[in-house]
Amino acid sequence: MHFMTALKAAWLQRNSLLCVGLDPDPAKFPPHLQGQPDAIFEFCRQIVDATADLVCCFKPQIAYFAARRAEDQLEALIDHIHARHPATPVVLDAKRGDIGSTAEQYAVEAFERFRADAITVNPYMGRDSVEPYLAYPDKGVILLCRTSNPGGSDLQFLEVVGSGVGEKLYERVARLVAEDWNASGNCGLVVGATFPAEIARVRQLTGDMPLLVPGIGAQGGDIAATLQAGRTGAGAGLMINSSRAILYAGKGEDFAADARRVALETRDAINAHR
Amino acid sequence: MHFMTALKAAWLQRNSLLCVGLDPDPAKFPPHLQGQPDAIFEFCRQIVDATADLVCCFKPQIAYFAARRAEDQLEALIDHIHARHPATPVVLDAKRGDIGSTAEQYAVEAFERFRADAITVNPYMGRDSVEPYLAYPDKGVILLCRTSNPGGSDLQFLEVVGSGVGEKLYERVARLVAEDWNASGNCGLVVGATFPAEIARVRQLTGDMPLLVPGIGAQGGDIAATLQAGRTGAGAGLMINSSRAILYAGKGEDFAADARRVALETRDAINAHR
Repeated sequence: MHFMTALKAAWLQRNSLLCVGLDPDPAKFPPHLQGQPDAIFEFCRQIVDATADLVCCFKPQIAYFAARRAEDQLEALIDHIHARHPATPVVLDAKRGDIGSTAEQYAVEAFERFRADAITVNPYMGRDSVEPYLAYPDKGVILLCRTSNPGGSDLQFLEVVGSGVGEKLYERVARLVAEDWNASGNCGLVVGATFPAEIARVRQLTGDMPLLVPGIGAQGGDIAATLQAGRTGAGAGLMINSSRAILYAGKGEDFAADARRVALETRDAINAHR
Repeated sequence: MHFMTALKAAWLQRNSLLCVGLDPDPAKFPPHLQGQPDAIFEFCRQIVDATADLVCCFKPQIAYFAARRAEDQLEALIDHIHARHPATPVVLDAKRGDIGSTAEQYAVEAFERFRADAITVNPYMGRDSVEPYLAYPDKGVILLCRTSNPGGSDLQFLEVVGSGVGEKLYERVARLVAEDWNASGNCGLVVGATFPAEIARVRQLTGDMPLLVPGIGAQGGDIAATLQAGRTGAGAGLMINSSRAILYAGKGEDFAADARRVALETRDAINAHR
């Protein structure tokens, strides 16, 4: 799968900008799954099968698997998505960042071991720390830019001295990626829904680059403002992530049906503003 | 183990500022280990047993294990270090960074699953992304500040507007950590040996805070300049990392003896400048 091609096809054919984030927390699973040895896989598999036709991509968050020694279940989950939903790209949310020789190992982890179609990467260590991911031309490399959490402002909102008057660090990151790191056209950026003004600025700086937007739902970001700020001329360009609000919509054996209902509502709420 | 206490004791009692980085690359292993199912563990175990009395800490790099589905061998390795070398702290080099709820999962991964004594963390997402690690008061939290790779300058060397005239981003990170995030006294910073002037500046900003210094050996950093810039008044305060130069010093069945020889030389070269 070529990530960017598959993402654009999913936006168009599924008529969806929704990304379902797979952050499996066993404490929140329905009782009938608790204690099963493959509960993490099984919970995520049912969410995936119930929502795949409603999403433009899935985004498993690796920490939730790693904290529970469940890398094998993450492998099985991504294999399942590729086998059963082959048109649906998988973004591995790992936010890696290290020197080149180590980044090569992380790229192997994400793209060869886990068979992800894209990965989130932290830009703090600069271009050579990102190149090993960019070297996979079919894969997506989605750089943190303006994150949705309160502390995101500590560094990202600092004003930096340079060509632009009043330019902030997140804007410099957006420019670096758009003007330099994206030579192969496989980059995206993370911009939180909690900051619509910055989504608009990043859209201005990056043309039609795909933006991964976390922060709607549990984190309080506004869908209308996100769409208005971030949609491209074609009404796409966004992967709008929702995790907890969809995953834990239901608490019973029919949790996947509840998840589907909320995913449908969320997709439609997004589409109402395209 | 209380990381900071153990680190200070190791500096003093072992008379060593050397950190051996465990970046196991099976392609570089001696022929007799190649193809063994637990080759990664066995290679690292022999390095650890041959050098433990010469180091102030070990630093396994998680990507080298994750790329090869060898998390179980990393668990076994850290268990081995705790059992056989209980006074030697383990810094898990993972450079994690995510919003608070996800960072909690990464903290579980590092401190509970892998039983590391300290972790490296990326500061780009700000204070609330670091707090879940700081919440473990016995553990060390070592923030990236000025990294040893060429691309480190892309963001870290940008001048930021604020209280200090001409302050660079890495200096702001050092100040944030020293003046705010280090309330429990369990923080450290990563500053590359390739930039002695910045080591000196970080030392000036952070008092006696422990600095993890990669970049000597294969990356070309200078030991004398690093010590002159970064040692504290007591001639300590540094974890000077060497990985490849020690791990791959020998290519035969006696590779661990070769590693010990180079580790001893490196420790003594460091001590010559304390």
